[in-house]
Amino acid sequence: MAGNSRDPGRSVTARALSVLTAFDIDHVRLTLTAIARRAEIPLATAHRLVRELEMWGALQRDGDGRYAIGLRLWEIGLLAPVNSRLREVALPHMQELCRHTHDNVHLAVRSGLEVVYVEKLTTPRAVPIISRSGGRLPLHSTGVGKVLLAHAPTTVVHECCERGLDRHTAYTITEPGRLGRELQSVRSRGFAQANEEMTLGNCSVAVPVHDAGGSVVAALGVVAHSARADVGKLVKALLPAAEGIRQRLVELDRSELDLLSR
Amino acid sequence: MAGNSRDPGRSVTARALSVLTAFDIDHVRLTLTAIARRAEIPLATAHRLVRELEMWGALQRDGDGRYAIGLRLWEIGLLAPVNSRLREVALPHMQELCRHTHDNVHLAVRSGLEVVYVEKLTTPRAVPIISRSGGRLPLHSTGVGKVLLAHAPTTVVHECCERGLDRHTAYTITEPGRLGRELQSVRSRGFAQANEEMTLGNCSVAVPVHDAGGSVVAALGVVAHSARADVGKLVKALLPAAEGIRQRLVELDRSELDLLSR
Repeated sequence: MAGNSRDPGRSVTARALSVLTAFDIDHVRLTLTAIARRAEIPLATAHRLVRELEMWGALQRDGDGRYAIGLRLWEIGLLAPVNSRLREVALPHMQELCRHTHDNVHLAVRSGLEVVYVEKLTTPRAVPIISRSGGRLPLHSTGVGKVLLAHAPTTVVHECCERGLDRHTAYTITEPGRLGRELQSVRSRGFAQANEEMTLGNCSVAVPVHDAGGSVVAALGVVAHSARADVGKLVKALLPAAEGIRQRLVELDRSELDLLSR
Repeated sequence: MAGNSRDPGRSVTARALSVLTAFDIDHVRLTLTAIARRAEIPLATAHRLVRELEMWGALQRDGDGRYAIGLRLWEIGLLAPVNSRLREVALPHMQELCRHTHDNVHLAVRSGLEVVYVEKLTTPRAVPIISRSGGRLPLHSTGVGKVLLAHAPTTVVHECCERGLDRHTAYTITEPGRLGRELQSVRSRGFAQANEEMTLGNCSVAVPVHDAGGSVVAALGVVAHSARADVGKLVKALLPAAEGIRQRLVELDRSELDLLSR
């Protein structure tokens, strides 16, 4: 606690944030004891912080006394550009793609060495998949991940390879040289494909989403049954959707610049 | 700062949270100075807190030096039951409704005396509307709001009336007695309707979404052009969708109980 007395702000904020980090998709509801254990803070500290976070709305308490992330934190989280600028702009185009393909439709961004799924739409006819909005998967074994990796700085590709390319199925690309050639082909063809590289039986096809400045800010993908996926057809559906999203991003940028110049 | 020295934790956490509260839908990107002003904290404090929040991922910094809510806070916000249990369960049913009606589809919950929109799906043919996911609107003048108010404790209805029923259009119900009769009719008919009561030209129709215990946990609604809305048809589309969501919520509950009993 020496650091604490020198810089109480840093330490208290960090501990409050550690309470939030105690929650993840496998721990959506936690008792106070579990929060203290997972956040590695004393029970009395956890009690005080949880009470404050609950009063503010960052946590909410269930009928059975367990805590969950609160409505207010969810509301504030939605202000993140990944939702307010990207997801909301892309959603109508994703719905259209879903209607057209009857398959799972993904919008994803890169965070460090992982894919973060921004939104996932599905239909009753779609193949079951493990992704969920807000969830993370590897870059090298998913369609959207390959698109994001192909357009990332080369240092990111090196870091991925150094960390090791985990094998998820017999078809996962685990050899750095082969991955490099694959990413080159993603760039030259304009789309990525992952054939049963993450999950057996699933094929994903993805294309880049550009922003007003031409940078790749996201990947848009479809996951279908590998047996019935028509890659050419999927690419033909994906490209105009990605272009539609880009155009809306350009319009958004323009209206923001207009606002600033007033 | 007397309170601060007696209880540094409360105060520091509250100030860190006030940095987050500086952001809202009209202030998605803020300079450090704007954060300090809106959070009502000294610039030096804001600087330290913002740096900590940025390091953790609660804030992110733009190319132009402005701050926005960060990806990590968005990810943690998605763990809130309103997303992880309600929105994700409802989304496929909302897509189906959207496909069927070609109108705006809303999922909403009540928070205090307001409607919080959990998700909004739209189509190119839908009438333009002001709601957005994470946004708030009044209870008495929207279809989903009337459903939520009709199934809220009577104290909530009293509080709404006491606070005053704001008039949004010439058709808004602003008289408590009339609102009471309207809510009674919502309960007896099993659906709510709002005809140009929030926005001229728009008609919204909504039904309750029940959970496993039979409580109304959300409202599902469609917003259409008032001139072309076929209320009977919309109710017929909404009811099975709400029932589909209820069934999935029951299944979720059962699988959680199974997990706990293992």
